[in-house]
Amino acid sequence: MARVEILCVGSELLSGKVNTHMSFFAPFLRGLGLSIGRETSVGDSVAEIREAVESAFARADVLLITGGLGPTFDDLTREGVAEALGLRVTYRPEIFEGIKKRFLKYGRRVPDENKRQAMVVEGATVLPNRFGSAPGQRIVRGKKAVFLLPGPGSEMIPMMRDQVAPYLRKSYSNGRTASKTILRLCGIPESAADEKLDPLYKTAQRRGVEFTILSEPGLVDLHITALAKSKREADKKVAAAAAAARKLVGRWQFGSDEDSLESVVGRKLLSKRWTLAMAESCTGGLVSRRLTRVPGSSRYFLGGVVCYPDAATLRELAVHPDVIRTFGAVSSECATAMADGARRRWGADCTVSITGIAGPAGGTKAKPVGLVWFALSMKGAKTRALKMLLPGDREAVQRRASIAALTLLLRSL
Amino acid sequence: MARVEILCVGSELLSGKVNTHMSFFAPFLRGLGLSIGRETSVGDSVAEIREAVESAFARADVLLITGGLGPTFDDLTREGVAEALGLRVTYRPEIFEGIKKRFLKYGRRVPDENKRQAMVVEGATVLPNRFGSAPGQRIVRGKKAVFLLPGPGSEMIPMMRDQVAPYLRKSYSNGRTASKTILRLCGIPESAADEKLDPLYKTAQRRGVEFTILSEPGLVDLHITALAKSKREADKKVAAAAAAARKLVGRWQFGSDEDSLESVVGRKLLSKRWTLAMAESCTGGLVSRRLTRVPGSSRYFLGGVVCYPDAATLRELAVHPDVIRTFGAVSSECATAMADGARRRWGADCTVSITGIAGPAGGTKAKPVGLVWFALSMKGAKTRALKMLLPGDREAVQRRASIAALTLLLRSL
Repeated sequence: MARVEILCVGSELLSGKVNTHMSFFAPFLRGLGLSIGRETSVGDSVAEIREAVESAFARADVLLITGGLGPTFDDLTREGVAEALGLRVTYRPEIFEGIKKRFLKYGRRVPDENKRQAMVVEGATVLPNRFGSAPGQRIVRGKKAVFLLPGPGSEMIPMMRDQVAPYLRKSYSNGRTASKTILRLCGIPESAADEKLDPLYKTAQRRGVEFTILSEPGLVDLHITALAKSKREADKKVAAAAAAARKLVGRWQFGSDEDSLESVVGRKLLSKRWTLAMAESCTGGLVSRRLTRVPGSSRYFLGGVVCYPDAATLRELAVHPDVIRTFGAVSSECATAMADGARRRWGADCTVSITGIAGPAGGTKAKPVGLVWFALSMKGAKTRALKMLLPGDREAVQRRASIAALTLLLRSL
Repeated sequence: MARVEILCVGSELLSGKVNTHMSFFAPFLRGLGLSIGRETSVGDSVAEIREAVESAFARADVLLITGGLGPTFDDLTREGVAEALGLRVTYRPEIFEGIKKRFLKYGRRVPDENKRQAMVVEGATVLPNRFGSAPGQRIVRGKKAVFLLPGPGSEMIPMMRDQVAPYLRKSYSNGRTASKTILRLCGIPESAADEKLDPLYKTAQRRGVEFTILSEPGLVDLHITALAKSKREADKKVAAAAAAARKLVGRWQFGSDEDSLESVVGRKLLSKRWTLAMAESCTGGLVSRRLTRVPGSSRYFLGGVVCYPDAATLRELAVHPDVIRTFGAVSSECATAMADGARRRWGADCTVSITGIAGPAGGTKAKPVGLVWFALSMKGAKTRALKMLLPGDREAVQRRASIAALTLLLRSL
């Protein structure tokens, strides 16, 4: 498989600006059957750019460079690339004429600075820019190619689609297409999933199938990718690998590809024509927030109550004072009363309640920080409560609790 | 100034996951008087990691490596670094014992995979991880140092603060100390802030003070950093620059340094001994969730209601049916009724209500996606409502609305 490297040029990328280009490049290039071998970000310095281009060009078949094509003194990609390849940059008056026209169209006079954008690495093919003044450039060296692309996504992405992709497909995809799927798991730690899947890895790799495990606390994503001569063949490889993986971790899988815990919960509720309400204490509305991220969630999510102090819990969810007096707000009994109270009050088919100690303060020997009680109240079923001791700081406890609540709900629907 | 390079390890970074580490590293290292020369992202491959470490180590004084310290087969940073430096990795049983304890504490059995996290590059100093199972490592070679850090920010950032920063300050800041402050602004776009501050930049730079603007929708952070022979001198430089900046953007500043909108709102409520309740529709609990992120928020945040369909809004917040029948749920009148209803019902000193169209569906000519009404009901004041038309997709509208609500509240307290 041809190796692509991405070089992002711009001092702002080293001073804290978040670089979002990879979220475009990665899936886009995967679709062409190409894989990214490395991403590098350097500042606006000819020496840095030259060194980065030299080494990347030695490793990669295709080098995509974004940024540093602007008109100002610190736009130095052209010079850096030329030095790296031992070429000159030459002024192309016809390009400057084009830029002039563009400016006039918007009734603006073109500053002399923009002449820099008419400097082209010798032998380069110029890639017109429909959405900005900086043209792209393509330099071919034997079987390798370097592309100079504008920094702004609004200019770079169309140039990739219209002018770079066709060239890459013709020259580097050598007739192979990629296929991909993601198995989404919950309720299993990353290391445990990995342990279970281990027997698969070797044989899969022999068959040209690639596994990648990505995870966040409480969730594990298994990415399965394959390349083949035809889309059909690639799809078959992926399907086979996915089936084998399901045999090992199937019971933890809640969805695939674009699914999220929230969206799958939503689908299940819709198919049952059920409504949901939430009663959250220590998660402070995080579960409601997650549920309402899903477009159309108003069709099944009635809403919820975020209750902080006991008094509010009592009133809003009609929890009997004795429950809290006797067992405390963080208890099986209170969680149960919260869930039942919320279900009655919102007239929902099911409710989940969450009450716990997110920390940092409020923990005791008997009820430490991270202790969270959940209860599920459901039409036609006995209300169940369960507790978990969740690791991490306040933020982590809240996140894990929100995922645990959605997992509990999902398993019961 | 010592050169730092960042190496991010993880195939997910080459498959599209957005890398946000630089927005932490850049300002943090600037505060230590260090500058980042390059950022590199490589996949989970020993060969890739080795090559990247070799070349980065040749260029940099300090190499910070994040990721690839997990327990799974594709966590290979330890091996890659060892190969690059010609060292062995050795198993440290005492580390595995620590990991075991950590798992047991949460009632989980530790998989054998986690033994990989007890592998240490020979001669490395182990950096304990308070928030996860992967310890960090520090390897010193003459005047140069390599740090292996966990990938998750929740584990990496505390390790940088507590264990890496002191070492870097001692070894690389050569007698110069940095001083730093952040002015946190809301209600002003990044470009507008930049324009207003422009007069300051040149003179500041001559005085050795550096400005960096980082922003997310609705929020702008102005980082002000200075280096000097003494802390006192550096502090003076920063204080002077901050004062000058405040003259230009002071009215948009809501806090500084560790402050967040939520925490400043909390402080103001505490100082007034006021309580707050929320009534959220289109933000689905996001504001409550943000407020309850703040430790101790239960001292002033009573809770809130997330109301989705009109029926619930009516019942939960005692909004008169005529209001919605006549004006619709997304209207000044409904927002006002929601805020007043919530305040009565929760007995809070102030409440904010949010009702709008987050999209993608539900928009009309008269009430397009992105239209959001806010109302603020406050003890001893007339309830005020205002509307905004917020750009972006569902997620963006919800985020911007949550920030706008907190901003509105802050300005009025």
